[in-house]
Amino acid sequence: MEQTPERAWLATAVEEARAGLAESGVPIGAALYAADGTLLGRGRNRRVQDGDPSAHAETAAFRAAGRQRSYRGTTMVTTLSPCWYCSGLVRQFGISRVVIGEAVTFSGGHGWLADHGVRIVLLDDPECVALMRGFVAERPELWREDIGE
Amino acid sequence: MEQTPERAWLATAVEEARAGLAESGVPIGAALYAADGTLLGRGRNRRVQDGDPSAHAETAAFRAAGRQRSYRGTTMVTTLSPCWYCSGLVRQFGISRVVIGEAVTFSGGHGWLADHGVRIVLLDDPECVALMRGFVAERPELWREDIGE
Repeated sequence: MEQTPERAWLATAVEEARAGLAESGVPIGAALYAADGTLLGRGRNRRVQDGDPSAHAETAAFRAAGRQRSYRGTTMVTTLSPCWYCSGLVRQFGISRVVIGEAVTFSGGHGWLADHGVRIVLLDDPECVALMRGFVAERPELWREDIGE
Repeated sequence: MEQTPERAWLATAVEEARAGLAESGVPIGAALYAADGTLLGRGRNRRVQDGDPSAHAETAAFRAAGRQRSYRGTTMVTTLSPCWYCSGLVRQFGISRVVIGEAVTFSGGHGWLADHGVRIVLLDDPECVALMRGFVAERPELWREDIGE
């Protein structure tokens, strides 16, 4: 598989997702990269680990990046299609691009983001799909809780 | 002024906003109430206080409420029209109603939420307007940072 920057960035998000799985958490990871490829922040869903329902992977990565004056040119990389909460984050702060591991097991607001000028790169990554499939099969209640269903 | 439940709930959010102002923070407050009127969580924007750009008032109140199995019947009360990030939170988790202090100084996603079945109560509260007008006039750069402009 060609090692594009997007693939290397996704690997960071996948590392976070795997760490979440190892902690019995929701295995979704994300990272925020600057336009020049600098890693600004990375994180994973922390609902279980911190008892914090506001810590989705994307919001955790955004938080880890600290205060930024502008998000122009930044890329949010996430293992899973962003839910409405995380899609709203991307739109409000003007994050320029979202690289998504997969949108097979869950499809959030990435089409809406595309309609509002955010560049969407959907990688259809088999490891991301396998991580979520395994998790949803094993812990369906936790997954439904995490997306408010 | 009639003391409806919405007005009493807004008072909690206004207390949070005032506390944020006293801490030199962004003066926006919020609270999440259960269907029976129980306060589940309250919070305020903590960008300045914690250096945390992910802590908007609504997400802070949501976080303070901890893990919940369902948000059916809950009301998010906020001093200001929710931005896209906070509107996304409301939509994703199925929060039933949003009570808004004002949408004069900033208008976020409350129309979009109404289109998606969320009940919106806009109170047009003069104190909420005055809090934001004073803040935006005094600290325009901080306000633009908080909404990613």
